[in-house]
Amino acid sequence: MATERNAPERRARRKAEANAAVPQPPWSLVRNPLPPLELLDEEGMTRIENTAFRVLEELGLEFMSEEACRILEANGAKVDHATGLVKMDRALVKTMIAKAPQEFKMYARNPERNLVVGGNYINFGPVGGTPNASDLERGRRPGSFRDQVELIKLHQSLNTLHTSGGTIVAAQDLPVPTRHLDQHRAQILYSDRVWGGSAIGRDRIKDALELARIARGVSLEDIQREPSISTIINTNSPRRVDKELLSGLMEMAENGQVVCVTPFTLAGAMSPITIAGALALQSAEALGVLAFVQMVRPGCPMIFGGFTSNVDMKTGAPAFGTPEYVRATIIGGQIARRYKLPYRASNVNSSNAVDAQATYESAMSLWACIMSHGNWIHHATGWLEGGLVASYEKVVIDAEMIETMKGWMTPLDVSDEALAFDAIAEVPPGGHYFGSSHTMSRFEHAFHRPMVSDIRPFQTWVEGGSPDTTQRAHLMWKRLLENYQQPPIDPARAEEMEAYIARRRSEIGERGLA
Amino acid sequence: MATERNAPERRARRKAEANAAVPQPPWSLVRNPLPPLELLDEEGMTRIENTAFRVLEELGLEFMSEEACRILEANGAKVDHATGLVKMDRALVKTMIAKAPQEFKMYARNPERNLVVGGNYINFGPVGGTPNASDLERGRRPGSFRDQVELIKLHQSLNTLHTSGGTIVAAQDLPVPTRHLDQHRAQILYSDRVWGGSAIGRDRIKDALELARIARGVSLEDIQREPSISTIINTNSPRRVDKELLSGLMEMAENGQVVCVTPFTLAGAMSPITIAGALALQSAEALGVLAFVQMVRPGCPMIFGGFTSNVDMKTGAPAFGTPEYVRATIIGGQIARRYKLPYRASNVNSSNAVDAQATYESAMSLWACIMSHGNWIHHATGWLEGGLVASYEKVVIDAEMIETMKGWMTPLDVSDEALAFDAIAEVPPGGHYFGSSHTMSRFEHAFHRPMVSDIRPFQTWVEGGSPDTTQRAHLMWKRLLENYQQPPIDPARAEEMEAYIARRRSEIGERGLA
Repeated sequence: MATERNAPERRARRKAEANAAVPQPPWSLVRNPLPPLELLDEEGMTRIENTAFRVLEELGLEFMSEEACRILEANGAKVDHATGLVKMDRALVKTMIAKAPQEFKMYARNPERNLVVGGNYINFGPVGGTPNASDLERGRRPGSFRDQVELIKLHQSLNTLHTSGGTIVAAQDLPVPTRHLDQHRAQILYSDRVWGGSAIGRDRIKDALELARIARGVSLEDIQREPSISTIINTNSPRRVDKELLSGLMEMAENGQVVCVTPFTLAGAMSPITIAGALALQSAEALGVLAFVQMVRPGCPMIFGGFTSNVDMKTGAPAFGTPEYVRATIIGGQIARRYKLPYRASNVNSSNAVDAQATYESAMSLWACIMSHGNWIHHATGWLEGGLVASYEKVVIDAEMIETMKGWMTPLDVSDEALAFDAIAEVPPGGHYFGSSHTMSRFEHAFHRPMVSDIRPFQTWVEGGSPDTTQRAHLMWKRLLENYQQPPIDPARAEEMEAYIARRRSEIGERGLA
Repeated sequence: MATERNAPERRARRKAEANAAVPQPPWSLVRNPLPPLELLDEEGMTRIENTAFRVLEELGLEFMSEEACRILEANGAKVDHATGLVKMDRALVKTMIAKAPQEFKMYARNPERNLVVGGNYINFGPVGGTPNASDLERGRRPGSFRDQVELIKLHQSLNTLHTSGGTIVAAQDLPVPTRHLDQHRAQILYSDRVWGGSAIGRDRIKDALELARIARGVSLEDIQREPSISTIINTNSPRRVDKELLSGLMEMAENGQVVCVTPFTLAGAMSPITIAGALALQSAEALGVLAFVQMVRPGCPMIFGGFTSNVDMKTGAPAFGTPEYVRATIIGGQIARRYKLPYRASNVNSSNAVDAQATYESAMSLWACIMSHGNWIHHATGWLEGGLVASYEKVVIDAEMIETMKGWMTPLDVSDEALAFDAIAEVPPGGHYFGSSHTMSRFEHAFHRPMVSDIRPFQTWVEGGSPDTTQRAHLMWKRLLENYQQPPIDPARAEEMEAYIARRRSEIGERGLA
């Protein structure tokens, strides 16, 4: 009877539970309490460093920008203006890099989402720059603005992420010259976290900076002191830096924003086939360009980026999560620490599907990120297919892996209550702890609660339709998006943002981008 | 024309290549060059240790064997003969455990497969004791002798494994009393590596020992000095040791064979719900039973086993590869090192399918095994579904993961040739290294060659039928089995083995097992 009468109520309650926000650990800054792993000894480190400096001193880097070359020359570099080749001696590089902060803050439009970069802080950010998106239902497709918005919202719904990323996926359905305006509007409206812009020319960075300033409701001077946006500068390895990227870099640095220089040194393709050689070239390019950042603005916050991996020598396709990637990532961290710079690493894989390979490669990458004391974990969630795809299901699965990592790194409670001598005394030999008072008072929060891991007994799982992890992740991102909550924004700031974007849209339509 | 004429030859060559043994790194002893990870500080370690000793001193362990109790009493333990509860003070435990070797050798029938256990050696062994087997084609099924033989052969075909394991999967189609004879015959004939027996009563161990002795062609005295077999003793946590296992343990220890004591301390079920409490109980049980091993035979080689994880508090199902498992495994290693004992850990997961969860949980477990300096990695390949299933596909995928781990741990070559300054000088800015002489002379062996990882471009992969990792692993284990080579055995030893087995089969038929 009671059953009958309460049925609608129970149904409603069940529905509410199904729609409830997914239980997650709260958003927090994350610190790595472990000592960093040192894979290479001092002699090996010196040999790599020395080779890197020989590259800078004897061979040089090509800076494809007259403006950059003038700055380099004024600061003591030797510039061949005919070729754009710039040689820097090691003393100059070291002096410049020593001007950078070891640790700095980043300022989000929601001050509760401000970050610390450097030291033993780990910041996780979404996959970036993929041309395609994919999910189980809609398949693999060229990225669209809808994908971009959904992925910003999905990441905002996950407490795991510290930033809302940059161009998670390219909005290929929007016109190129104004695409960044739509992207930044979405980043600001749908997320309250720190975000990144694309340093392709000065104008895009000017727009990003102005929008970040408006969103925070601060002055230009404020934001120059309190960096709010970041960008990734990939060198055109080997030994070349693109003109447009240098323009964007200079705009970022002049305004004190965060520049992460990441050489694209895939061993056997854009760098020597040996990991030692690839790391030497990576170091040369990163240190050379980072020294240039300090010439533009001494003290500018910056990040040493590592992205060295191997390629498949048959196809030239990049491989990730391999032994070579793990080594390069861990030793890359050692190099960054040598120069007291925050370190960027990535959670990457080369699988074509969200399957066993995707996660074993990702897990290898993620452990390398953590053991190398990565401070800025780019592509932490959603990367698939060597970076050609942002996968919705992979976003959720990566968040699960990251929460597992955060969980085991949390210092263990060894209080008397946790040591549980009394509970041990209470249960007889061969008994069990299911009903003990120690268990009962703690069981709800004792263990990490997974989002997609399924440990039901086999038969129960079969009766539930044998959903594999990727299918469960599919349901989970849908549930997260259904429960997405847009973070509040000051209406005056939103209005100012819309007005700026409208004005810029019309300017760019008339004059194009610089 | 040439094409036409050579077609049959090319077809034959292609077939030969397809059937060629799978390229793998050679079998070798593996050493861990890294410092072990210390997750808990000295104060925390002391608190866990102190709680463990209080359990042994104040509460005691139940040894369900009068014979064991007499030995314990004779060595200074306090025995309550009515309850079987045995209390040991910490000085006694420490004195006994100090008699064990820190490092020892194990002797295979092929001396080239002898092992070193302890120090920084890592030995990988297959999954053990699963009731079921599964593969993509035949599905999940109760384990059979055919499965057992195939899995012994599959592991023998993989250079990754150091041992051929114990009861990989139960041969449920064979009569229980003589099943171990068939298993050991298969272990000896189809593999030339160290193997393990089940310590259920004295007779099974006597048979295992005699068969190992015959296979090696040595005397009983030889094999007592040169241990050849291992066994896992799981306590019936909390605080109980089974009579049959104690009989098997005593038979093993009296003969100087390798005893690995592994408490079955799943937090929230067989041990306190807190990881600190579960580790305290694990330590108490392991140290208490290991002290007993030294009372039976001082100097007996033995291994401190860790298997602490959490359970799902809703279903009671064990969870693996979780933050709790990683913590317990790493701190378990710290405890083992405190007593200078070799450490056993496991590559485990709780997934019902060989999918993304299976490998992210396994990868978490495997990293914990390595970072904790596990010396004896049990269940290293093939474990699925919380240990209820030995999966053929998982065997191959786990071997891939282990080879990745071995790869990145290999010390990096930082010779001048590897640092590649000349190669860097040879390639102009923006060029590539594909055709450089440095690349050409090294590309075949520069990188780890995966068995199942597939990094073809997406479109090529789709044209190839979009095989996921598990499907590729399916093809790979078939290929490995097709190319399986039975290791040679001295015919006289094989004959002696067959005669022994025939005699024992008839004796057990008449008198049963003791």
